[in-house]
Amino acid sequence: MESHLHYPTDKPVIDLAAIVAAVNPERLANDLATVAKMGGRSDGGVARLALDDNDTRARLWLIEQASALGAKASVDAIGNVFLDVPGSDPALEPVVTGSHLDSQPAGGKYDGALGVLAGLEALRALKQAGFTPRRPLSLVSWTNEEGARFSPGTSGSAVFCGARSLDETRLVEDSDGVSLGSALDTCLAELDAAGVPRRPLATPMHAFLELHIEQGPILEREGAAVGVVEGIQGVSWFEVTVIGSANHAGTTPRAMRRDALEGACALATALREAARDSEDRVRFTIGKFAVSPGSVNTIPDQVTFTIDLRHPEAATLKALEAEFNELAQQTWAGCKATLTSLSRVEPVAFPATLTALLDDTAHVLGITAPRLVSGAFHDSIHLANHCPTAMLFVPCRDGLSHHPDEHTELDDAVAGTQLLAASLASLTR
Amino acid sequence: MESHLHYPTDKPVIDLAAIVAAVNPERLANDLATVAKMGGRSDGGVARLALDDNDTRARLWLIEQASALGAKASVDAIGNVFLDVPGSDPALEPVVTGSHLDSQPAGGKYDGALGVLAGLEALRALKQAGFTPRRPLSLVSWTNEEGARFSPGTSGSAVFCGARSLDETRLVEDSDGVSLGSALDTCLAELDAAGVPRRPLATPMHAFLELHIEQGPILEREGAAVGVVEGIQGVSWFEVTVIGSANHAGTTPRAMRRDALEGACALATALREAARDSEDRVRFTIGKFAVSPGSVNTIPDQVTFTIDLRHPEAATLKALEAEFNELAQQTWAGCKATLTSLSRVEPVAFPATLTALLDDTAHVLGITAPRLVSGAFHDSIHLANHCPTAMLFVPCRDGLSHHPDEHTELDDAVAGTQLLAASLASLTR
Repeated sequence: MESHLHYPTDKPVIDLAAIVAAVNPERLANDLATVAKMGGRSDGGVARLALDDNDTRARLWLIEQASALGAKASVDAIGNVFLDVPGSDPALEPVVTGSHLDSQPAGGKYDGALGVLAGLEALRALKQAGFTPRRPLSLVSWTNEEGARFSPGTSGSAVFCGARSLDETRLVEDSDGVSLGSALDTCLAELDAAGVPRRPLATPMHAFLELHIEQGPILEREGAAVGVVEGIQGVSWFEVTVIGSANHAGTTPRAMRRDALEGACALATALREAARDSEDRVRFTIGKFAVSPGSVNTIPDQVTFTIDLRHPEAATLKALEAEFNELAQQTWAGCKATLTSLSRVEPVAFPATLTALLDDTAHVLGITAPRLVSGAFHDSIHLANHCPTAMLFVPCRDGLSHHPDEHTELDDAVAGTQLLAASLASLTR
Repeated sequence: MESHLHYPTDKPVIDLAAIVAAVNPERLANDLATVAKMGGRSDGGVARLALDDNDTRARLWLIEQASALGAKASVDAIGNVFLDVPGSDPALEPVVTGSHLDSQPAGGKYDGALGVLAGLEALRALKQAGFTPRRPLSLVSWTNEEGARFSPGTSGSAVFCGARSLDETRLVEDSDGVSLGSALDTCLAELDAAGVPRRPLATPMHAFLELHIEQGPILEREGAAVGVVEGIQGVSWFEVTVIGSANHAGTTPRAMRRDALEGACALATALREAARDSEDRVRFTIGKFAVSPGSVNTIPDQVTFTIDLRHPEAATLKALEAEFNELAQQTWAGCKATLTSLSRVEPVAFPATLTALLDDTAHVLGITAPRLVSGAFHDSIHLANHCPTAMLFVPCRDGLSHHPDEHTELDDAVAGTQLLAASLASLTR
């Protein structure tokens, strides 16, 4: 097997064994427990909504960890917190890792927080192992990834990478009418008071690595502690409306019916069949399905349903969209259908050089880390347009996330942190 | 063609031409307009709810028409109004026709009222044509057929025929908490004040004939002015629940899904196919269909839908019910299903001798009157257990009923009334 890890002769060999040994399970577990208390729920879950008091406390706690790393903390105009460890060559662009500290209202301890805390532990382990990075090395916590309080999410990474404007993002309001800008200013004032300096947006990066829980069942099914994420699926949301004719269920012969529910079931089945692939890579879901008028003895005259279609490859996604459009133009049980696009996000493929480096590092460490594609969004979707980006996933029990019962085994979190630390060493040396 | 009309030599030949000629379109149109004003809506529809002031006014108006017929008016304990024309042999059981005067809240001028007013016009025409019935001949208006104010409907015919108890029926309340018994007592007090005598329930009948609008599209499609109803479909209502497993739409592979909507669509399609008959006599409708949790990016974990299944033959209905039960026991897209009976009414087949008499009378009158089966309920469903019963349908525009735009052409109403009058003459002589 050809190695993708290149060791130029003028660079020192990394002592991976020392780095791996320096990853401290107890320290990681303590950090997870500490952060989970900020917004902790009585059911064991976490409610740390973006830019609320708990989210600010979590930022301040993270900033306190900087000194032990020999790092400098700073915050940008959208509230993203960075801990910057200097490299031996300060002229080089930094390698960055991190995730987000905000949670869903009934969220868990791991979604987001694990990526920040694994990054923190990786930086500690690198320091403890005596590793001196040539490139600067940064830890980041992005603002409002979840979008639970302020929708849409991934605000911090989107504004940092220039995908959204800061001004427009500040105008977004929560359900109480509080703007993101106002909540952000409150948070930033606390950080100002703590002496945390500001930093510019869109600073260049050599690479970005994000560790996150999978939020799906694949790693658990495969018994793997870590997965190498090769990209994020593209998502296309549609609304389909099927129009028939309402009539008396008892008196209207079948030949005279235009039953919108019969048409909708037939079209839904045809769409599902069109999306069926032997590789099981297409994700096709009809989640909403509303029937009108909704009376036991009246033939339905209208059905409206949604499609959530995902695929990691842009060409396949586009081909399926075209096929769906063609199917919707046919007549279904005598009914007309219309298909409207609700939203669309292009797939992201992480650079092969970076995923190969993760593969090889896992191989060297003896960690089985299968490839997989992310079905959910992450801050990395924006970072991928900013610099070479990749992700590591660790399993979560029953694929469950956005739930108080969300759980990742410590052994898996540690294996992910070890792979992250070793990969950061390779990228920064 | 063998005639089913038997003319014993000791009976006079009926002058059908005189009876038909005596049916007066203008008089029928005037009656329809007069009664439509009692509870008339500004949109042209009718809101004459059972036992409200308008319904009582309509009763009193009907009772006023008795003297011109040489009939005696009376009312029974559930408020059914009878106009009794004496026969030359008072020992014989009467032949009865009629329908109901109550309407839906946003109802039309014809549903129910036409059957009463066509019966009234038929009795007038028989008298005007000099026809003297051997059997007594009665016109009836049944209380609360619609069930719109007091549910369930067909109260008057059900209590009269002994299918429901008077006491329990009196306890039913409307949405304002007014009991049927209390509203009935108010109505009966007005009739008492007008000197209308009481009559017993469950009095024997030789035959019952009800004329009604079709509430379906068949006669209009066939261009027929009248139809001979050979029975009322049996109805079986079911609720089907399909249980799957909720999961993230983006991260759950197809092979690991148990999608309740996929299962429900497949089961719904299989049930629909099982109900498909080449004769187009089965009526199969899924009218309600609720999906949980109903989020675009969550795989549904539960779908609950209803089935409205109708067929004129008890054996076929039963066989389909058994087949539905078997289908529900299978696994659908990995999901379990349950099928629960919500309600069930056995089909009614009207006696062949009576429907043949209607066929033959139509033939003699030169009226094309195809056979059909009622898809909706009528008071006749109870009368069929009390005496030989049959129905005549007249078309309604676009099959529309329970709607202000409900409409029957006067020519069709007149043809129906002519056939009704001639048939009553045959039955009573």
